[in-house]
Amino acid sequence: MDNGNIFLAHGAGGKLQAELIHNFILKYFGNPVLNLLEDSAVIEKSIAFTTDSYVVKPIFFPGGDIGKLAVSGTVNDLLCSGATPRYLSLSLIIEEGFSFKKLDTILRSAKCEAGGAGVDIVCGDIKVVGKGELDEIFINTSGVGIINGEALSIKKIAPGDRVIVTGSIGDHGISILLKREGLKFGTSLISDCASLTGLAESILKPAYEVHYFRDPTRGGLGGVLAEIANSTGLGIEIEEEKLPIKEDVRGASELLGIDPLYSANEGRFVVFVPEDHSQEVLNVIREDKFGREAEIIGEVGETNPSTCVLLTKIGGKRIIDLPRGELLPRIC
Amino acid sequence: MDNGNIFLAHGAGGKLQAELIHNFILKYFGNPVLNLLEDSAVIEKSIAFTTDSYVVKPIFFPGGDIGKLAVSGTVNDLLCSGATPRYLSLSLIIEEGFSFKKLDTILRSAKCEAGGAGVDIVCGDIKVVGKGELDEIFINTSGVGIINGEALSIKKIAPGDRVIVTGSIGDHGISILLKREGLKFGTSLISDCASLTGLAESILKPAYEVHYFRDPTRGGLGGVLAEIANSTGLGIEIEEEKLPIKEDVRGASELLGIDPLYSANEGRFVVFVPEDHSQEVLNVIREDKFGREAEIIGEVGETNPSTCVLLTKIGGKRIIDLPRGELLPRIC
Repeated sequence: MDNGNIFLAHGAGGKLQAELIHNFILKYFGNPVLNLLEDSAVIEKSIAFTTDSYVVKPIFFPGGDIGKLAVSGTVNDLLCSGATPRYLSLSLIIEEGFSFKKLDTILRSAKCEAGGAGVDIVCGDIKVVGKGELDEIFINTSGVGIINGEALSIKKIAPGDRVIVTGSIGDHGISILLKREGLKFGTSLISDCASLTGLAESILKPAYEVHYFRDPTRGGLGGVLAEIANSTGLGIEIEEEKLPIKEDVRGASELLGIDPLYSANEGRFVVFVPEDHSQEVLNVIREDKFGREAEIIGEVGETNPSTCVLLTKIGGKRIIDLPRGELLPRIC
Repeated sequence: MDNGNIFLAHGAGGKLQAELIHNFILKYFGNPVLNLLEDSAVIEKSIAFTTDSYVVKPIFFPGGDIGKLAVSGTVNDLLCSGATPRYLSLSLIIEEGFSFKKLDTILRSAKCEAGGAGVDIVCGDIKVVGKGELDEIFINTSGVGIINGEALSIKKIAPGDRVIVTGSIGDHGISILLKREGLKFGTSLISDCASLTGLAESILKPAYEVHYFRDPTRGGLGGVLAEIANSTGLGIEIEEEKLPIKEDVRGASELLGIDPLYSANEGRFVVFVPEDHSQEVLNVIREDKFGREAEIIGEVGETNPSTCVLLTKIGGKRIIDLPRGELLPRIC
């Protein structure tokens, strides 16, 4: 690998990225916190720390823009470790000649999202690079959150857990792609991009015993479930007919040959909860404005260890593996 | 301004960047922590949090590379708030086609620097963008440090304080420029890029009463002193003949028409310390391997409020203002 070059797929959240992380990042920086490869690192016992760079193209898309995404994406990563998001950094890398008008729109949108999510931007950085040295604007947000109870951990997932997805899948990925390619199809579709602070708070009550949740961004729901099955050693079975997929997403996906299961979401969680609390948690999620389309889509078992299996509508079984290539570069 | 465009100078750490920060960033995100515009934000009373994106060009330069710089720059920002640097995030944005060999060199160098500085990389992100959408590789590191004693604050700077610079100035900026332009002049010059953890620890003893220190990166020593004078309302007087400037830097600066006072440093601090401890602190700094060329270069007073003045070798006075334009884009 050392003599090769980086492909787009190395940034796609799939197999190649996993290889890159293992062969380079963990080789050099491996430590007990980083090795967990969770959405946030837990440091000093009760502090969650996370980072993400946003390179989405186009920077303005139906349902949001790079500013809103940069805030909500990092907020959601903090939430996934069971933390209350509190502080964000905001680092802008801007191409010379970028308009102040666009910058203003992006920052206003980031401010609005930060306000809604209850986080303060406390530090930042601005770099400007020459024309042609960067495509418009990239934003990095890192986040710090406070863990009050116990940190959520992938290790808590247990056989019998029900798998809930908090809303329809693929909306973000497909709407970005339609916008980028200038396709008129599915024009009512908007990205699901949103900070899920309220939703997370509502399900994190001790009584519900939520074991784990994760935001299925790059690699989509399929990618995240494959990764979880792989790292827990458990089997995950989901049912195709229970997957909430909007008609526009289904149609566009078929037309473009893209599987919505691997398409990025930016305002969804996949939640693991013990069976006896699953219906109650589903109801609570559905009361949140970002959770109305939530569904129980499957369960965790011990057959098919380390594997995620999709039960298709026609009664077949399909292994849901990590995505191999890059479906949609610059999706977030 | 809203109808204009971003210039390179908006990223140069000077007047235009200050305007951009005030008119856009503080307008939207202003809060008591961010408004201080310190190198690190102090959150939860004893935690320092900082971020920086690195876009240096060329990515390999005499004395370092973008990996070393991304670690040391963020470590130094944490040190400047009086914190012990502990945790770093590492977010890579890579151009498709970038070689694994270069990536490996950069990461190895980041690892080496992190080890020396006593920080762990605990979280990260990798994005890959298409060929031509980014020039090679940009790195964001955010950092978290623990403040054990009192946080250093610009407010502690007082009249009578001596100003110490911990080493020769302009080495980083000039060596990057010589390398970028392929100039053969001053080929023995290397960047001062380094994590100053040891140096900071050695002067942060309560007995020394160090009031404040800052790393004079973008905008150089002149830019930082102008900014400090401006935000404290105090006057700062420095003496030209006491400024440690290497012969190669002096020569290259004259040749290129660049003032080393405004040229970026990546392994230097400018330290403010009460007069009665200044000689002792200078001696301690000189014992550190990165502090051998330290000098007391001036003092803080109440004449010339909000202004930094340079006493020239020929007995004149020159006002050191914030840099106006962009001397050296992509210097860090």
